[in-house]
Amino acid sequence: MKALVFDGRFHLSEVAQPYRQKGEALIRVRMAGICNTDIEIVRGYMNFRGILGHEFVGEVIGSEGDQLVGRRVVGEINLACGDCDFCRSGLSRHCPNRRVLGIYQKDGVFAEYLTLPLENLHPVSEGLPDEEAVFVEPLAAALEILEQGPPHPSDKVAIIGDGKLGLLVAQVLQSTGAQITLVGKHPQKMQLATRWGLDTCPASKAKSLPPQDVVVECSGSPSGWELALQLIRPQGTLILKSTYHQSFPFNPAPLVIHEIRLVGSRCGPFPAAIRLLEEGKIQVKPLIHRIFSLSQALEAFEYAQQEGVLKVLLRMD
Amino acid sequence: MKALVFDGRFHLSEVAQPYRQKGEALIRVRMAGICNTDIEIVRGYMNFRGILGHEFVGEVIGSEGDQLVGRRVVGEINLACGDCDFCRSGLSRHCPNRRVLGIYQKDGVFAEYLTLPLENLHPVSEGLPDEEAVFVEPLAAALEILEQGPPHPSDKVAIIGDGKLGLLVAQVLQSTGAQITLVGKHPQKMQLATRWGLDTCPASKAKSLPPQDVVVECSGSPSGWELALQLIRPQGTLILKSTYHQSFPFNPAPLVIHEIRLVGSRCGPFPAAIRLLEEGKIQVKPLIHRIFSLSQALEAFEYAQQEGVLKVLLRMD
Repeated sequence: MKALVFDGRFHLSEVAQPYRQKGEALIRVRMAGICNTDIEIVRGYMNFRGILGHEFVGEVIGSEGDQLVGRRVVGEINLACGDCDFCRSGLSRHCPNRRVLGIYQKDGVFAEYLTLPLENLHPVSEGLPDEEAVFVEPLAAALEILEQGPPHPSDKVAIIGDGKLGLLVAQVLQSTGAQITLVGKHPQKMQLATRWGLDTCPASKAKSLPPQDVVVECSGSPSGWELALQLIRPQGTLILKSTYHQSFPFNPAPLVIHEIRLVGSRCGPFPAAIRLLEEGKIQVKPLIHRIFSLSQALEAFEYAQQEGVLKVLLRMD
Repeated sequence: MKALVFDGRFHLSEVAQPYRQKGEALIRVRMAGICNTDIEIVRGYMNFRGILGHEFVGEVIGSEGDQLVGRRVVGEINLACGDCDFCRSGLSRHCPNRRVLGIYQKDGVFAEYLTLPLENLHPVSEGLPDEEAVFVEPLAAALEILEQGPPHPSDKVAIIGDGKLGLLVAQVLQSTGAQITLVGKHPQKMQLATRWGLDTCPASKAKSLPPQDVVVECSGSPSGWELALQLIRPQGTLILKSTYHQSFPFNPAPLVIHEIRLVGSRCGPFPAAIRLLEEGKIQVKPLIHRIFSLSQALEAFEYAQQEGVLKVLLRMD
């Protein structure tokens, strides 16, 4: 089958179709999304080697039992061992023995086929088009903020970063009734937020915002981190959604002095993300900038890294 | 009056007795404690210039209204403006216009006299000796952890740092029923914890501890911070009690991936600290290593910085 492989070099290759292990389904990928994490991996993050990609919607074509065969599914990215203390206490997303789809020791979704354990799969309804279903994984990650403790309606909340993740987080947090400001650098992206009824502020003027009760860092840049520390009020909550490729100098003293609560936030609840998309509560189509075929995947990656580009999708047919 | 002054140089001086402003009391200092923050300030922290020190017990000798005159008091260290949004919303400890006793724009307690606003003062009962009352401020700081959300009885909690603060935090957290391990480098200090019924672990062997639900960083060293990140379980809570003099390289990615909750923790509730000391629930006398007179203050500072030394007190008479 055709697949986008990173093995130090980054190339489209003809590789063997994956073999379905016990407890797994074989899935024909229909559509996949390029995430910033994929771009970070190509730059060296996680030292991953293999087929890239973790955002997808596909059709089950082989499985133990027949109930999923023929169904369109999305899939959770953490492959837990099921056997350790973490898995047994319901923390399987944090299983220390886990593999992670397209990120750590498990081939990903930028390919014609993939395998995943049945317990990772969630069917989506017929009415939900591929172009939306492919956003379930990043939307679930945005929803994780609400799972960890939502902002109050009286809170001022700044979201730093007007990329794909920031725009999903902004929509998700809008439901809390909090006063949201999206801080970004791209007028076109911020216009989307304005259209959804959100306040926006250019990053260059963000220092004039009042102290914020909650800041969500979605920029993944050290300057975003610095800005977050400047905007957060004493005893406020700073939510970190982005991973960073590099270390930077840091002194925790301001966190202590101002009693900041810093919350790392990663993967979230798939069922809620599916439901919200099915109900049309979250707008994802405006985030799609272009759809490429798998054979154009290298070009798609180049395009995804251009200034101002939001979601780039790969269609596998 | 005699005072220990830091003005780039560090010396005992004869300075003017402070003048009581409106709303303030004039206090004759009876006893004061040397804190690691004082030592950090002499090394350049906060760029403070003036009389050092913020842990004290003293006698009110002048005040508007007579109700406090003649009473022994301890005092909160944050001098808030009383007028800003933070003060009005009950966050006066975090007032952005605040001065901080012996730390920021307000002369401290290593002197014969000091002034403080009346609202900062808390009388202590006759039965509480000076040697214990002088621990109210650091004990309140340890109690702040419980104010911010106590560990559960089923939690494993590691406290990193067997200094004064770590030993107070260890006693305070013992009341939660959690399984506490004090991680330190000084056998004599750890023996104290053992005597109080706490588990201890040498820092060199801490990596073999099981993943901890809560880690409290009280060492103030980058190696303590590193160890904290290694010990904390996914979705665990890492409480930062120490300020750090220097920046160090940091990548927040592990906080995001493991969804760590990091909580900065500073000043705490004085009334609870006073009550616990009055009820004999917290042992502070074993933490006292030596008492010097104010005229021996320079020698006391040298002594306080020696390896293995816990609390050093100054007696002002």
